[in-house]
Amino acid sequence: MKVVEVLHMNGGNRDISYANNSLVQRKVILMTKTIAEQAISDLYSRLFPKTLCIADLGCSSGANTFLVVSELVKIVEKERKIHNLQSPEILFHFNDLPGNDFNTIFQSLGKFEQDLRKQLGEEFGPCFFSGVPGSFYTRLFPSKSLHFVHSSYSLMWLSQVPDLIEKNKGNIYMASTSPPSVIKAYYKQYEKDFSNFLKYRSEELMKGGKMVLTFLGRESKDPSSKECCYIWELLSMALNELVLEGLIEEEKVESFNIPQYTPSPAEVKYIVEKEGSFTINRLEVTRVHWNVSNEGINGGYNVSRCMRAVAEPLLVSQFDQKLMDLVFQKYEEIISDRMSKEKTEFINVIVSLTKKR
Amino acid sequence: MKVVEVLHMNGGNRDISYANNSLVQRKVILMTKTIAEQAISDLYSRLFPKTLCIADLGCSSGANTFLVVSELVKIVEKERKIHNLQSPEILFHFNDLPGNDFNTIFQSLGKFEQDLRKQLGEEFGPCFFSGVPGSFYTRLFPSKSLHFVHSSYSLMWLSQVPDLIEKNKGNIYMASTSPPSVIKAYYKQYEKDFSNFLKYRSEELMKGGKMVLTFLGRESKDPSSKECCYIWELLSMALNELVLEGLIEEEKVESFNIPQYTPSPAEVKYIVEKEGSFTINRLEVTRVHWNVSNEGINGGYNVSRCMRAVAEPLLVSQFDQKLMDLVFQKYEEIISDRMSKEKTEFINVIVSLTKKR
Repeated sequence: MKVVEVLHMNGGNRDISYANNSLVQRKVILMTKTIAEQAISDLYSRLFPKTLCIADLGCSSGANTFLVVSELVKIVEKERKIHNLQSPEILFHFNDLPGNDFNTIFQSLGKFEQDLRKQLGEEFGPCFFSGVPGSFYTRLFPSKSLHFVHSSYSLMWLSQVPDLIEKNKGNIYMASTSPPSVIKAYYKQYEKDFSNFLKYRSEELMKGGKMVLTFLGRESKDPSSKECCYIWELLSMALNELVLEGLIEEEKVESFNIPQYTPSPAEVKYIVEKEGSFTINRLEVTRVHWNVSNEGINGGYNVSRCMRAVAEPLLVSQFDQKLMDLVFQKYEEIISDRMSKEKTEFINVIVSLTKKR
Repeated sequence: MKVVEVLHMNGGNRDISYANNSLVQRKVILMTKTIAEQAISDLYSRLFPKTLCIADLGCSSGANTFLVVSELVKIVEKERKIHNLQSPEILFHFNDLPGNDFNTIFQSLGKFEQDLRKQLGEEFGPCFFSGVPGSFYTRLFPSKSLHFVHSSYSLMWLSQVPDLIEKNKGNIYMASTSPPSVIKAYYKQYEKDFSNFLKYRSEELMKGGKMVLTFLGRESKDPSSKECCYIWELLSMALNELVLEGLIEEEKVESFNIPQYTPSPAEVKYIVEKEGSFTINRLEVTRVHWNVSNEGINGGYNVSRCMRAVAEPLLVSQFDQKLMDLVFQKYEEIISDRMSKEKTEFINVIVSLTKKR
């Protein structure tokens, strides 16, 4: 599986699109707002750039894409008023993998800009937008061209499925039954990917530039801990049920592994310090319930749909598209059952960084 | 009709896509190569930028989009070798209206970059790409952020259909039978649009920055001259045939006008000098046959398909999508007939400009 070609959130505005099933991600963006606020206001009041260049890495498409922009530019606008300065030009880069639905973002921009201008007034901006397709595990921007990098719920995705020397039998992700070599391979891939990410961003950011990164993580020392792996374990249960029913070959599940790693704050700290380009300003952990919807709808349904919007393209690269309705129906049943019996939460790690030199 | 929402080349890779029906545009890009070459080499050897920022305005999607990039970066690569310098970082912006198929561009970039690197070697670049959606009759980029602007076969499109005080009866474009007020309104819209274009680009270009612009034009003083209006006159004939057959209401044709203006070199010179931000380095006229294909296929078919790829979204904004096959079948017949009897050419105006201050 070539992650760069396969991984993308479900596009468009369909029933199973990411745009319509990303309330958890929305909540997380709002939870981290104060940390982004502190970072930008600090950055702005040190550099006072005439053109402020911001990139959102892994922007996806839909309301969350625009929520990030509007939250960030509102902070800038507030800050420049505090300093009694003219609004800077803002250049906002949307980045995601090439399979992301950029057309939908671009076609919604006109309306978004109008609304933003209504809220912020004629003095605001101008704000310019660009789409930058590509993996953030490569260079994406010219040297020293960015002031601020934001990324939410993207950096737990690896650049590739780790090379495994043993089979991860019965699992599609790290699990308590995974061989130690599998766990090690996952961590090694993460360390390599996150180090590369830091190195490339340090080349692209100007001196004093900042990043606020939020990703799925864990608190436990154990990378196969239930707190981070359970959601995928339940998906492997759904897939294994279809194996038992003869609809999926066992081999197909055996050779399928999710290219994700959910690090602990300690691992993040270790890798940032080892790579050396950034100072850690804040490193925090928050929790969010699997089902953030306040509506009375079945929680299992919401969670399953959210996971479908995220993971369907990966699954379709390995399994028949026609089975997806069935897979996610089973997944929903399993999730509903567990949610009724257990406390089910995603753990988020948030790190705020400043480029050293 | 809101041109910014309606105008775009037919997307994707379908039979009637722009990607598959744009040989004329391809030929014109190649014809103007030497002018772009002169402009870039001059620019490069004056400024030696560490990061060279290039924008292609009205990039469309398909092979021509990438042809422009590869022609331009090859010139830069040749030039830096002459000066025995390290390859600069290149930032290439793809611009078109938001309805353009950016997803297709972005999904082809990986392969394109690989091919380019094979041709130019490891020393080349790095080259970064971004998509910038929006009308070039507005600001698109931060102040002083561009070195070079390229645009081919886009600037004859107006920002809107001119406000007409008289009906342009029986026509969908300027024609010998159009009232003088219609011709005047078209010119006024062009003057306003092209002046705005120059003003906005002068804000975005750095000092010494350059533009090479190619567009459909004419040599005659008369804006309704056959040399530029004939292709649309034949389309209006096709539409009027459908009126006679009762398939289209006459009113619908009467209220439909193509938002295009094909200027003479004298008009271009006048507007550039009046606006005042740019010096004209070169201003030239070339001609290209309606049917540039060397293959034995029916020329009328090729021309009609090329025009369909360009104009279908405009037509669909006014007429029933279901009629399009019929409209373009009639158009093909009419074009074939005329091509067998007359010399049919597009006239291109090419202008190379340098920002004064």
